[in-house]
Amino acid sequence: MEEIRPIIWEDGVLKLLDQRLLPEEERYLACSTPDELRDCIKDMVVRGAPAIGVSAAFGMVLAARNYLDRLPVNLEEDNAPQEGFWQAMEEAGTKLKASRPTAVNLSWGVDRMLRKLSEAKRAPTGTVLQLLEAEALGIYEEDIETNKQIGANGAALIAEGSTLLTHCNAGALATAGYGTALGVIRSAFQQGRVKNVLAGETRPLLQGSRLTCWELQKEGIPVQLIADGAAGFFISRGEVDGIITGADRVAANGDAANKIGTYPLALLAGEHNIPFYVAAPLSTVDLSAGTGWDIEIEERDGKEVLSLGGRRLAPEGASARNPAFDVTPAGLITAVITEKGVIFSPNEKKLIRMFEGGVQRG
Amino acid sequence: MEEIRPIIWEDGVLKLLDQRLLPEEERYLACSTPDELRDCIKDMVVRGAPAIGVSAAFGMVLAARNYLDRLPVNLEEDNAPQEGFWQAMEEAGTKLKASRPTAVNLSWGVDRMLRKLSEAKRAPTGTVLQLLEAEALGIYEEDIETNKQIGANGAALIAEGSTLLTHCNAGALATAGYGTALGVIRSAFQQGRVKNVLAGETRPLLQGSRLTCWELQKEGIPVQLIADGAAGFFISRGEVDGIITGADRVAANGDAANKIGTYPLALLAGEHNIPFYVAAPLSTVDLSAGTGWDIEIEERDGKEVLSLGGRRLAPEGASARNPAFDVTPAGLITAVITEKGVIFSPNEKKLIRMFEGGVQRG
Repeated sequence: MEEIRPIIWEDGVLKLLDQRLLPEEERYLACSTPDELRDCIKDMVVRGAPAIGVSAAFGMVLAARNYLDRLPVNLEEDNAPQEGFWQAMEEAGTKLKASRPTAVNLSWGVDRMLRKLSEAKRAPTGTVLQLLEAEALGIYEEDIETNKQIGANGAALIAEGSTLLTHCNAGALATAGYGTALGVIRSAFQQGRVKNVLAGETRPLLQGSRLTCWELQKEGIPVQLIADGAAGFFISRGEVDGIITGADRVAANGDAANKIGTYPLALLAGEHNIPFYVAAPLSTVDLSAGTGWDIEIEERDGKEVLSLGGRRLAPEGASARNPAFDVTPAGLITAVITEKGVIFSPNEKKLIRMFEGGVQRG
Repeated sequence: MEEIRPIIWEDGVLKLLDQRLLPEEERYLACSTPDELRDCIKDMVVRGAPAIGVSAAFGMVLAARNYLDRLPVNLEEDNAPQEGFWQAMEEAGTKLKASRPTAVNLSWGVDRMLRKLSEAKRAPTGTVLQLLEAEALGIYEEDIETNKQIGANGAALIAEGSTLLTHCNAGALATAGYGTALGVIRSAFQQGRVKNVLAGETRPLLQGSRLTCWELQKEGIPVQLIADGAAGFFISRGEVDGIITGADRVAANGDAANKIGTYPLALLAGEHNIPFYVAAPLSTVDLSAGTGWDIEIEERDGKEVLSLGGRRLAPEGASARNPAFDVTPAGLITAVITEKGVIFSPNEKKLIRMFEGGVQRG
């Protein structure tokens, strides 16, 4: 397997594989400031809930470096940072969190960095920077481990010879590596359980065509692209054994926000009695959101629907609406696959119990 | 209202508005032979079940002319055509019918022309040609009248201030003029019942973006384009009061084949208790197909999904599946709106009764 590395931390610079250019071009974009990273998140150079969570953690390292670099030259790194630093870090976190509203991993990554920072209130500047960088790298490594565990937990659910349908890209590219939904597909494929994958192209930004096909092809996993509207055709003809997607935020009751177009797939799965799985790390669960209605849904520029690669698709003067996510009610979710275990028929009690640590089935 | 004329019969030539070029260019393509028309239907220069039915009728006129033109020069037009002619017309009909498999209007148009021909077995050649041309023109005119009647019948179902969602293009461009689903929207808008239209872009060929937006904009009907996957978002938030689409074939039990992506919309409508209407002339009803499973579904070239306007969307070597239609079960259809009346909760008994002529409600 050729390793896919969407996020590289090197010499204090965050290098992001520019996912807007895939599959045509594999080019990294370097971020040295949190503002540069914010633009990259907004513009979807980096996308996918876990990947933007990990990126935001590194963004906090960049914020600390940038703040301290602007101080008078003689600042000794063995002095503790001044009051302004803590405030600047809070502000940097707030700005990073605001770059995209739906994926809760973004807040999760920032908050984890702020928590680490608060543990180091009196430490010298040099130590603070080291701690921050180590924490971000830890988040990065953990994410890959988490995904492998999700993969293992999920693969056990897949029957031999399955054709699975997925939507958007919840792959290595959406995470630090390995992927959530595609992590499950990877693991299940290695165990000989996956015969074929149908990938929804995922309009408007075509993450299915551009990213999921690219990832699966790299590993020789059979994949066929379909228009998003075609899922019902294949499901109603019995050609799909299960659906698996990622999530951008899971509410306390188990409702899951994910890429626009996910909810109709879950409805189709329910109608035709095939399982609908959500593969997501616990960092995607937001217990402060009671239900899906409490999740803010990003509406992006209509231009993404009206044109493609600079080419206008609709008549001049046409307008479009472009919500980036929809919410799948918990009742349509067969199971949420997390790193700690599989939560069948998710609800608040089960999600809280999973947070508290127990491995759980059913 | 600026009249939209997708099909023009002029001086014995069939001129088709090339719908592949819309909305950028309004260019007509002239067909002088049935083979040219067949290519135009296959390549979707002309598309939409009623429009290809009407075109096929003119195609039979072209077939007759072409056959007779190839005979020895001195053929007197007041002699009856020879045996070879009848066989050639049968063959031309069979070839035209094979150009696309799903829309039954294609067979309907050809069969109606063959029936007219069989009534004129002993008539002189000149008369036969006149009869054929008159029949095709009759089918053309009837189609527009039929659509206006569908529009009137359907508009009565639309509550004031409605936001309607439609898919693909069942408009003037899909018919001889006025449209089926868009005919209903047109009529309802004129009566002040339509506040807004959401148009699914309809991947892969973007009939929603390119054709429906273009048609509605021309008439000042407010329309917003959405990705096909976004319908569930708007419906689940209560922003849609009803869904209306056309059909390519309605089976005897009321199952309806229509553009890929229609079935999930019907499922969403059912889940959220909003009406799902199919607007179609009776020429779209195929009583010989017992259920939707008897309708042949065209699978088109995967290239349509893999690229757009010559630009590759997926990685090299990727493959795609591209069914052009799906089937909505009768149980999800609130009503079929025909020129003869509205059939609520369609089933075989009601459809047969409608064919037999009675206006019917409920």
